[in-house]
Amino acid sequence: MDIDVIKKLLENYKAGDVPIHDVLEKIKELPYKDIGFAKVDSHRKIRCGFPEVIFCLGKTPDQVVRIAEHIVAGGNDMLATRADREMYDAVSREFPDAVYHEQAKAITIQKTRRKPHKGMILIITAGTSDIPVAEEAKVTAEIMGNTVKVLYDVGVAGIHRLMKSHGELLKANVIIVVAGMEGALASVVGGLVDCPVIGVPTSIGYGASFYGVAPLLSMLNSCASGVSVVNIDNGFGAAYVASLINRTRE
Amino acid sequence: MDIDVIKKLLENYKAGDVPIHDVLEKIKELPYKDIGFAKVDSHRKIRCGFPEVIFCLGKTPDQVVRIAEHIVAGGNDMLATRADREMYDAVSREFPDAVYHEQAKAITIQKTRRKPHKGMILIITAGTSDIPVAEEAKVTAEIMGNTVKVLYDVGVAGIHRLMKSHGELLKANVIIVVAGMEGALASVVGGLVDCPVIGVPTSIGYGASFYGVAPLLSMLNSCASGVSVVNIDNGFGAAYVASLINRTRE
Amino acid sequence: MDIDVIKKLLENYKAGDVPIHDVLEKIKELPYKDIGFAKVDSHRKIRCGFPEVIFCLGKTPDQVVRIAEHIVAGGNDMLATRADREMYDAVSREFPDAVYHEQAKAITIQKTRRKPHKGMILIITAGTSDIPVAEEAKVTAEIMGNTVKVLYDVGVAGIHRLMKSHGELLKANVIIVVAGMEGALASVVGGLVDCPVIGVPTSIGYGASFYGVAPLLSMLNSCASGVSVVNIDNGFGAAYVASLINRTRE
Amino acid sequence: MDIDVIKKLLENYKAGDVPIHDVLEKIKELPYKDIGFAKVDSHRKIRCGFPEVIFCLGKTPDQVVRIAEHIVAGGNDMLATRADREMYDAVSREFPDAVYHEQAKAITIQKTRRKPHKGMILIITAGTSDIPVAEEAKVTAEIMGNTVKVLYDVGVAGIHRLMKSHGELLKANVIIVVAGMEGALASVVGGLVDCPVIGVPTSIGYGASFYGVAPLLSMLNSCASGVSVVNIDNGFGAAYVASLINRTRE
Amino acid sequence: MDIDVIKKLLENYKAGDVPIHDVLEKIKELPYKDIGFAKVDSHRKIRCGFPEVIFCLGKTPDQVVRIAEHIVAGGNDMLATRADREMYDAVSREFPDAVYHEQAKAITIQKTRRKPHKGMILIITAGTSDIPVAEEAKVTAEIMGNTVKVLYDVGVAGIHRLMKSHGELLKANVIIVVAGMEGALASVVGGLVDCPVIGVPTSIGYGASFYGVAPLLSMLNSCASGVSVVNIDNGFGAAYVASLINRTRE
Amino acid sequence: MDIDVIKKLLENYKAGDVPIHDVLEKIKELPYKDIGFAKVDSHRKIRCGFPEVIFCLGKTPDQVVRIAEHIVAGGNDMLATRADREMYDAVSREFPDAVYHEQAKAITIQKTRRKPHKGMILIITAGTSDIPVAEEAKVTAEIMGNTVKVLYDVGVAGIHRLMKSHGELLKANVIIVVAGMEGALASVVGGLVDCPVIGVPTSIGYGASFYGVAPLLSMLNSCASGVSVVNIDNGFGAAYVASLINRTRE
Amino acid sequence: MDIDVIKKLLENYKAGDVPIHDVLEKIKELPYKDIGFAKVDSHRKIRCGFPEVIFCLGKTPDQVVRIAEHIVAGGNDMLATRADREMYDAVSREFPDAVYHEQAKAITIQKTRRKPHKGMILIITAGTSDIPVAEEAKVTAEIMGNTVKVLYDVGVAGIHRLMKSHGELLKANVIIVVAGMEGALASVVGGLVDCPVIGVPTSIGYGASFYGVAPLLSMLNSCASGVSVVNIDNGFGAAYVASLINRTRE
Amino acid sequence: MDIDVIKKLLENYKAGDVPIHDVLEKIKELPYKDIGFAKVDSHRKIRCGFPEVIFCLGKTPDQVVRIAEHIVAGGNDMLATRADREMYDAVSREFPDAVYHEQAKAITIQKTRRKPHKGMILIITAGTSDIPVAEEAKVTAEIMGNTVKVLYDVGVAGIHRLMKSHGELLKANVIIVVAGMEGALASVVGGLVDCPVIGVPTSIGYGASFYGVAPLLSMLNSCASGVSVVNIDNGFGAAYVASLINRTRE
Repeated sequence: MDIDVIKKLLENYKAGDVPIHDVLEKIKELPYKDIGFAKVDSHRKIRCGFPEVIFCLGKTPDQVVRIAEHIVAGGNDMLATRADREMYDAVSREFPDAVYHEQAKAITIQKTRRKPHKGMILIITAGTSDIPVAEEAKVTAEIMGNTVKVLYDVGVAGIHRLMKSHGELLKANVIIVVAGMEGALASVVGGLVDCPVIGVPTSIGYGASFYGVAPLLSMLNSCASGVSVVNIDNGFGAAYVASLINRTRE
Repeated sequence: MDIDVIKKLLENYKAGDVPIHDVLEKIKELPYKDIGFAKVDSHRKIRCGFPEVIFCLGKTPDQVVRIAEHIVAGGNDMLATRADREMYDAVSREFPDAVYHEQAKAITIQKTRRKPHKGMILIITAGTSDIPVAEEAKVTAEIMGNTVKVLYDVGVAGIHRLMKSHGELLKANVIIVVAGMEGALASVVGGLVDCPVIGVPTSIGYGASFYGVAPLLSMLNSCASGVSVVNIDNGFGAAYVASLINRTRE
Repeated sequence: MDIDVIKKLLENYKAGDVPIHDVLEKIKELPYKDIGFAKVDSHRKIRCGFPEVIFCLGKTPDQVVRIAEHIVAGGNDMLATRADREMYDAVSREFPDAVYHEQAKAITIQKTRRKPHKGMILIITAGTSDIPVAEEAKVTAEIMGNTVKVLYDVGVAGIHRLMKSHGELLKANVIIVVAGMEGALASVVGGLVDCPVIGVPTSIGYGASFYGVAPLLSMLNSCASGVSVVNIDNGFGAAYVASLINRTRE
Repeated sequence: MDIDVIKKLLENYKAGDVPIHDVLEKIKELPYKDIGFAKVDSHRKIRCGFPEVIFCLGKTPDQVVRIAEHIVAGGNDMLATRADREMYDAVSREFPDAVYHEQAKAITIQKTRRKPHKGMILIITAGTSDIPVAEEAKVTAEIMGNTVKVLYDVGVAGIHRLMKSHGELLKANVIIVVAGMEGALASVVGGLVDCPVIGVPTSIGYGASFYGVAPLLSMLNSCASGVSVVNIDNGFGAAYVASLINRTRE
Repeated sequence: MDIDVIKKLLENYKAGDVPIHDVLEKIKELPYKDIGFAKVDSHRKIRCGFPEVIFCLGKTPDQVVRIAEHIVAGGNDMLATRADREMYDAVSREFPDAVYHEQAKAITIQKTRRKPHKGMILIITAGTSDIPVAEEAKVTAEIMGNTVKVLYDVGVAGIHRLMKSHGELLKANVIIVVAGMEGALASVVGGLVDCPVIGVPTSIGYGASFYGVAPLLSMLNSCASGVSVVNIDNGFGAAYVASLINRTRE
Repeated sequence: MDIDVIKKLLENYKAGDVPIHDVLEKIKELPYKDIGFAKVDSHRKIRCGFPEVIFCLGKTPDQVVRIAEHIVAGGNDMLATRADREMYDAVSREFPDAVYHEQAKAITIQKTRRKPHKGMILIITAGTSDIPVAEEAKVTAEIMGNTVKVLYDVGVAGIHRLMKSHGELLKANVIIVVAGMEGALASVVGGLVDCPVIGVPTSIGYGASFYGVAPLLSMLNSCASGVSVVNIDNGFGAAYVASLINRTRE
Repeated sequence: MDIDVIKKLLENYKAGDVPIHDVLEKIKELPYKDIGFAKVDSHRKIRCGFPEVIFCLGKTPDQVVRIAEHIVAGGNDMLATRADREMYDAVSREFPDAVYHEQAKAITIQKTRRKPHKGMILIITAGTSDIPVAEEAKVTAEIMGNTVKVLYDVGVAGIHRLMKSHGELLKANVIIVVAGMEGALASVVGGLVDCPVIGVPTSIGYGASFYGVAPLLSMLNSCASGVSVVNIDNGFGAAYVASLINRTRE
Repeated sequence: MDIDVIKKLLENYKAGDVPIHDVLEKIKELPYKDIGFAKVDSHRKIRCGFPEVIFCLGKTPDQVVRIAEHIVAGGNDMLATRADREMYDAVSREFPDAVYHEQAKAITIQKTRRKPHKGMILIITAGTSDIPVAEEAKVTAEIMGNTVKVLYDVGVAGIHRLMKSHGELLKANVIIVVAGMEGALASVVGGLVDCPVIGVPTSIGYGASFYGVAPLLSMLNSCASGVSVVNIDNGFGAAYVASLINRTRE
């Protein structure tokens, strides 16, 4: 609800078409659906550019379905992350066009069809085990309307694998670097390009990786400028930021 | 040194104008100046879009001056962060046009003159004590050619101060949120806008803030999407990322 | 056992009605039941205003039943937290009027009937996944004789959902804010009201939330005054404190 | 600015006394003073019951004075915490009635005169070294209009010292327990009373106290119910919460 | 093998009864049995006063049995801690007189019969859930020949339960305090007695107890003197130390 | 005040020699001196075997002197730890027989003369830099009436230095091991003797020693049984425990 | 691809045997196989002396098999660590000569036959439970062509077990010390020998061992020089380093 | 003192040339000088290949001088690390040939003259601020008789600076990588060479580098094999290990 709506309302009120009580009510009314256990933020798309996304961890399949209903009802694309197969089964019973992305553990229902953003988002992983997090990023970036390319298993233990793809790096509008263990890849990539790099530390590793703390600290302390960081294993968050950046180029 | 240079070299070599030894030498030669205690990365601007920046912590005033010389010699803008007044005095003896930014603890020497990027970077602080970090971000963003606006002391303890500036938030291309204590401001701003938000946790606080760990964790766990994070007190890093993002809009 | 009891005893002793041995015994006797693996604190209600509560974690169903017997035997309301269904089954075999609160994982046996306190305790959650902790708080506050209202899923990612309920906030005597991830909700609420706010960080989140450390630190560093904090996921503790506060208004 | 003000404004606007531009402007105007480096929250008293408090750490003496001016200009009591003597000197030059509380490191300017709340706030310390934090709490609670009593150096190493004052404990409306080292005092007090207990861990100790982490964890894990916790060394915060609680009894 | 043995050997050697090779061999030979995956320290009893104890965590049932064989073969008492029932079954097949202590998760085989030490070791727990750790301590102390008394569930939330047993405390030669949550009991007991107190923090608790870190730090920072600490949940270790202390009184 | 005193009082009261008011008063009166900022625990010696010790950190010289007065006034030995020279100067002005122990940073005033305990306490350090902590232990153990021997700089980097003194180790009644860096000495000593070993981790080291955390964890995880631990740098605490142990041998 | 290959290529190109396009292509071509989810680093052996090793954690059995194919196809020895039996079954179906090392959880396929390095690598464990990590080291060192000896269960609780093998220690070229709990063994060994010692902290222990943090810190703070450290439980890494060292002696 | 010495002694004893008392004494006598506050390990050179090194932190200048005397008296090279200028002044008064290495904060007295080892140790830093730690390594490696080369400021932000020196890397026998911030350089170097790499994390950085924890974790989790790690800022330790490795090549 923007300032023009209010202006219009005030004019109608002045013209006597709308009683004062209605004006006050409208001002009080806020744009979300209250379904008891959740207040679905139907205004999110207008405010932030993309509808609310369902973070499934800690929710029941039924709760996921019911929130999905409200998102889809608004004609929006639906994205649910950290979803297991049981959740997908529940969702797909209601929405046969729902797609389950196995590696990414994400469910999507594509409702809108638009031309993708011109810029390209490149998603890189240090190792094979980091791929599930990268796939969550990929699914997210794609449903948000981006062209996505991936480059997997190019960690610094064999840096020539990365160097080989230097040209690919330079074509990207934003780069998402997904890395566990020591997470050095983010710094190295940051030093090679002039676009923003988003680091996603992963919990891949053991011992003194402390479930992703090691690459998290690594990326926060990147000696290369141009690197910002999201939470451990947060492929979704990285893609969301990347999408906001990518969009600005058009 | 790009592929065309090498192609040319090879042709000359084939034509017999260049001995094989020289070709091999050229391939080995890399674009930096070696001054003993530092290898000034003169190629950085071409590769990353901005010349090397001097991080002064742990360097002597003399080292700062000598690195500055090499940057300025290339006709580049010079930015030195975490610089104390003694360093500035040393630099300004050699470069009378050097400017010291007291609050930001930064030295700049502006050599280039270009039209600023069209987009606006908005820098927000939660409190008055966060301003020095915000100023480091401001100095950085400005010398990198951005239009910058600031909004200080709008922390969530009095959230109406932020709401009052909602319009300002919506005009920004990128927003940098600088906050210590619990760092909640980043999440709140992230939920209000559709541009990328970069969180800078600060070491402002005491006790269980653990010198910035509390806002760092807060920002990494932001419930609002669209927030990425840089190191504690790293105003420079946030502005660098913001500048890379802002540039893409033109 | 208060000073009047002792005074009376001494007078009886002086009058020769009570032998010195009995006086000494009485002084030694303390108000708890020793059942071997537990010393049920039957004096707790007099001392602290509510009978002992059973924290079930690490106890066997049988131990829970036996402690419950002693609490109920005193005509007291019984509350058992962190109880699984197996424990409930054991308890309900002996006490058919025992109620199991599924989400809260709590068992209650209501023995007393009194008029609830006048003031209202408001329980707020940032997300849907925080509801189980909030429900533990709700069950606790209700059996302690309070009027409770809830407001779920009003986290700061869509702050208008909270603002919409500003009026509700202002009616509360105490507010319990249950939030995981970055826990920013506690600070925001603290800045909007003039009643005490009790923050309950939850272990909802992943990666750098460190099982609730992120919102715990957030709440401890709240830039808004008026916020105090209890342990991670400790819905019971928050409600207990809230109840002590609420009671004082009558 | 409440709903009645807006209603009045709308009526005047309808009557044609106020142009639409003015109505929109008023809605945008929010109740704070913008003095550049700070936005003094002049609305805080209405919203939260006490005017904004100046947290001096990281501010210059001049900034403190200028914020103080705006608080006092509103006829409000002024409280500045974490203030060193240099700040006090600056403040007292402008406000000769400013008082410096040496141990508490607080400055107060008392502008209002009202009858103290009926209930009593009791402040307890475990040791002598915890007194400065307790004094910050005392100054805060007093300027917020409370009757305060103190009980210093009653730590659990000689628990009879506490037991001797059991009667005093029972008279309090709220108890603030200030303790460093292992912070056990909060649990012990929590088990003896039926009023809310607010724990303030202090950084007193060494080695594995980790500057207050030990008593912080202790208090968060209190086996006695009724204890909530504020940040390490945060005497001010504890007193603020205590005051909000105490006020409700009238 | 002590100095007298060596002296004797040398005298025999001088007398020509023993060749030099044998003397050197004897000096090299050290008192343990090498069974491949373990070097059973058969000299431990002479050196430290009690034979080697089997810490079962991370060992296979077969390994436990084989180490037990070597200990029992020396006519020693056998104690195995952290043993599950499967391990016990394996041991008891070979040693029908082996006893399994369910709560303590310990196996004992009593081979020696001696008069217990005169002094008494008192084992106290804060709660019911701490009992398994206390039982490990009890089994250990008993097989090491001590008189043991226990006092369970006397945590500081109801401190009168402890005070009631003050007399019992004063009779002990050493006191082991087993406590989770905030672990305050160790400090309180330390302030009441003049014998050594050994604190055993337990992993009982949740959230900010961090699996026993809270009571560990609590006990290390005890404001009462006379308290030393062993590892989290290390009932065995506490009893071992207590036994060494208790023995010295005779 | 023990049960006999009360019994006597009750008999006198029954005999009419004492009015009931006096009896109640006596019961209320507890054995400490209240001097405002401190409640000097004059009963400590009876209860714990040694008078209260002054922990000087965070106290003013004047406070130290005033507490010392009350301890000495009772004819007790006085020990003040963590005392700087300024504190000593203040104390020695009032008590010319006060002694300052430079390395230990302790002040003592010896008032009693008794025969030392028969057993010997051995204090060992791993390195030269650990000596100040060991000296604090030595001063404490001596004023508490123990025979003390020291063995400095016998860390495991040259384990033969320790082995050379094996005989000395075996003569001790209790051993205090003071070690920084990795703190391995405690485990090694624990494996060589049959008396209790008390580990004192020190903050000697750098980097990943984290001011004593490394040796603290080391000692808590000692693979040798018989080792208990006190706080980092807590020489006093170790000696206090050692003295309680040593006393039991007579 | 080394400098000689390029030189040859250039000569051929000059001679007209190779078109310029081919030369440029060759320079671009880098030595790895891209199989989608992985880029198998077939150049690793030339660069680092041993082919790529498969770290199985987080990979599917199928992925392991496919990477193995590419390694074996190059005639290389194959080593896969952290492999469970299901992975082995998958690998052995394709490579019947694959060997599963149960304790080490490693799969090897030996393709090359060469004379082992002359020097000996000695692998020591503190306890029996550390053996699986030591076995991973053993398998690694052996397939890399080293002579390996082991010495298990010689922890410092019975230091004579280690001393007995002093001669063995002196014969080693490199020593790997595998230890959990307090990890003291690394320091002790470091002080006895003049060859490099590599410490492998293990997650064996409980409570304050924090899954290997205690021995990790211990080893990093070793008071004996000559000790370097690898990640917790990283037997493979230690053996890899040891092998690089051992090789240099020939 | 080796086995031959003992054999000889025994033969003399048998021959009657040496009384039994002397034999026992000799066995007891161990090779160190006891100077009270230190036991100078004069046997270290024989055992570990290099005489004891003085770690000056926490020692007085006088203590440093006295330990130095004993080392030099044995005709040994003397190395003192973490030495400030005051210590150097004290040492040089006694030993005019002592050299102070300003950046390294080390003192050396060269007594022996030998041909350096054939292999080369290469010391690399990521940045200019890491140089002091690298210099400590350099001084150490040189006095231990190694040929040392350095390569400073080749961090991964400009990875071409490192690549340019690839040839240099390949010539080294051991490489020491000194890096703060995110410490990525160690992994990158590890992936490029086939010699052992020793990582030295430095405390250079701020915020989430936590005084070297970030690069420490980075290096421990290196995705490249062949990297082992020493303590934060421990240039000495790295060089010591490197020297032990380098020596083996001859």
